[in-house]
Amino acid sequence: MSCGGDDVRRARAWLTRAVEPGSPELWRWVEEVGPVAAATALHRVAAPPRLQALAGTRSGEDRSGPDLDRADRMGARLVVPEDDEWPADELHCLTVATAQGHTGDRTTALVPPLGLWVRGPARLDLAVDRSVALVGSRASTAYGEHVAADLAHGLTTRGWTTVSGGAFGIDAAAHRGALAAGGPTVVVLACGVDRPYPAGHATLFDRVLQDGLLVSEWPPGCAPLRHRFLVRNRLIAALTRGTVVVEAAARSGAQATAHRARSLGKVLMAVPGPVTSAMSVGCHQLLREESDRPALLVTSAAEVLEAVGRLGADLTDPAPVATGPRDDLSDVARRVLDACPVRTGVSPDRLAAIAGCTGLDVLRVLPALELAGLVEWTGTGWRVTGEGRSADGAVG
Amino acid sequence: MSCGGDDVRRARAWLTRAVEPGSPELWRWVEEVGPVAAATALHRVAAPPRLQALAGTRSGEDRSGPDLDRADRMGARLVVPEDDEWPADELHCLTVATAQGHTGDRTTALVPPLGLWVRGPARLDLAVDRSVALVGSRASTAYGEHVAADLAHGLTTRGWTTVSGGAFGIDAAAHRGALAAGGPTVVVLACGVDRPYPAGHATLFDRVLQDGLLVSEWPPGCAPLRHRFLVRNRLIAALTRGTVVVEAAARSGAQATAHRARSLGKVLMAVPGPVTSAMSVGCHQLLREESDRPALLVTSAAEVLEAVGRLGADLTDPAPVATGPRDDLSDVARRVLDACPVRTGVSPDRLAAIAGCTGLDVLRVLPALELAGLVEWTGTGWRVTGEGRSADGAVG
Repeated sequence: MSCGGDDVRRARAWLTRAVEPGSPELWRWVEEVGPVAAATALHRVAAPPRLQALAGTRSGEDRSGPDLDRADRMGARLVVPEDDEWPADELHCLTVATAQGHTGDRTTALVPPLGLWVRGPARLDLAVDRSVALVGSRASTAYGEHVAADLAHGLTTRGWTTVSGGAFGIDAAAHRGALAAGGPTVVVLACGVDRPYPAGHATLFDRVLQDGLLVSEWPPGCAPLRHRFLVRNRLIAALTRGTVVVEAAARSGAQATAHRARSLGKVLMAVPGPVTSAMSVGCHQLLREESDRPALLVTSAAEVLEAVGRLGADLTDPAPVATGPRDDLSDVARRVLDACPVRTGVSPDRLAAIAGCTGLDVLRVLPALELAGLVEWTGTGWRVTGEGRSADGAVG
Repeated sequence: MSCGGDDVRRARAWLTRAVEPGSPELWRWVEEVGPVAAATALHRVAAPPRLQALAGTRSGEDRSGPDLDRADRMGARLVVPEDDEWPADELHCLTVATAQGHTGDRTTALVPPLGLWVRGPARLDLAVDRSVALVGSRASTAYGEHVAADLAHGLTTRGWTTVSGGAFGIDAAAHRGALAAGGPTVVVLACGVDRPYPAGHATLFDRVLQDGLLVSEWPPGCAPLRHRFLVRNRLIAALTRGTVVVEAAARSGAQATAHRARSLGKVLMAVPGPVTSAMSVGCHQLLREESDRPALLVTSAAEVLEAVGRLGADLTDPAPVATGPRDDLSDVARRVLDACPVRTGVSPDRLAAIAGCTGLDVLRVLPALELAGLVEWTGTGWRVTGEGRSADGAVG
């Protein structure tokens, strides 16, 4: 499973703790000189000053050995770019963004991770190969949670993985929906995988660990500091084919994740909701944004997969459309049908006057209407049948 | 108010009864030979056979005098294209569509009306000059009715007229919302203005008649036959700047009106709703349609007017965005703030280790954090203040 040598893994473990993740400068330098040389230089305070400043006082420590041991003891591991398990295809978008010099401070920089601490039985690259991010507000409504669980369930039964952040609200509903469908789900954390946050989700995280994964850029023991969530959000967008915002307030982290997904060339989707709900305002804003690649409105797992799936493999069924017997009628036939009274039958001439056509028109269309069971001859005239009355055209 | 001569008005009155409205052939011929010559020829069974067939057995009757008298007695009138009151600007789109040979049977043909029977005190052209159509399902939900009434109320208070079809459900809620705001509203009927349908809305129509209008292509006494609703729908789309679909099932007349609005170059809008509601499926389908001119998602009257209003005159306010004291902080400052403990203060060196920066960085950002009231010196170290804790950044 792993090809990264022990020294490379140890160096990357050291880097994930010594330098707060999210720095494009550090990532470029590590790519240039290699992880071992980079870690050695920083530890010896021999790196270029700008990079040395990123490590700050942390450069003096070395907890890489204990961190890897601690991970090993709880069934976790550090997956590095040198491993087969590294989700290279998915994270390529971050490499491209960094190469293009995507601007932004550390919390918004679209930079690849130096390594990913992973806990759980699934293989990371396979787990995220066909995956969708479901994100949204922590202060979700019952509606939003229902939809999140329903989407995750539908994605899971179609063989797709749901990725989210493990937070209260929409995130949790998404993970639970995936678990209810008996599939794996991936939680991308902003803290160590040994202390998943929030603590109230301990049981949920235990269930995730049966089939799925907890993933983090931060080594074991790291706390879920606020700024880390912002850095983490790019990973949720990057690891998946597309991001669905289920519920979001007007100013929310979910919207930020959404915009990052779009910047990375991923499919951005949003679930609509009642316009009276504050928790759908963020979704509606995304759907109203003018853009070359506007957010796509989705209402079902099938529609999500139609947007992110491989062409031809995941097409949604067209919405079922009921057709009535009126649909095949000509304009004149419809008018004659509408002209037929319910009780006492009337003559073709009278029908012509009501329908606004000639008597010949009436005689021409009556046989077809009768054959379709829509009108009947009473012995003295024509009237509509029960079926003709209930044949539902779109009125109004 | 009227410039149409008596003979012209009488001829057009005759035509609206003799030929079922919606025929582009008849409209083109009337344009060519004039209404008086056209009516005379049809009445004498001397019109070209194809046109004569449109009148059928009705050509023998002449109820134009009694129709106009009946209208006069109930405070109604026939507005004709020759009148100043004719809404020529709005209906121009139908003239263009007919000239372009827009295809479709009579129920879907985009043809101008030959005249409009109008009842109520408002002047037709002024009433629809700044107007929006609100349409939707008869089988509406409480949510849809609430939104329809709210939109109509908002449009009315901003000086715009709400146009709808007077049906149960969304139509009625829209008219009621406009009336509640004390403004005029326009009901476009598929039957005579003397017998507005449905009868259960008699009180509603009475209230409409105080300030607004009942409008119909059909002369007094005509019944609301099913096919007439389909013909009527194009008028709702044509008379207004844009059409908002508030709630619609997957296959619905509201969707048909919506598509007609788009064909006529009008702004097409749809209100989103819960994805769990069958009555929002039609709206979501409109919003998902791929098109050069996709339906626009709207959630408020302000957004509707931004879409249909004159540039600069009806711009919506941007959604209010709360900004917190964290927003202006640099990445390092945010990390130092997050690193500050709640109770016992810690040294700048410890903060540097937690935040992942140099001690110098910490000393550089602490004064600003203290000035902003986010951190405080306890005498032995730095800790976060209550304001610093509650300064809400987007987490997760």
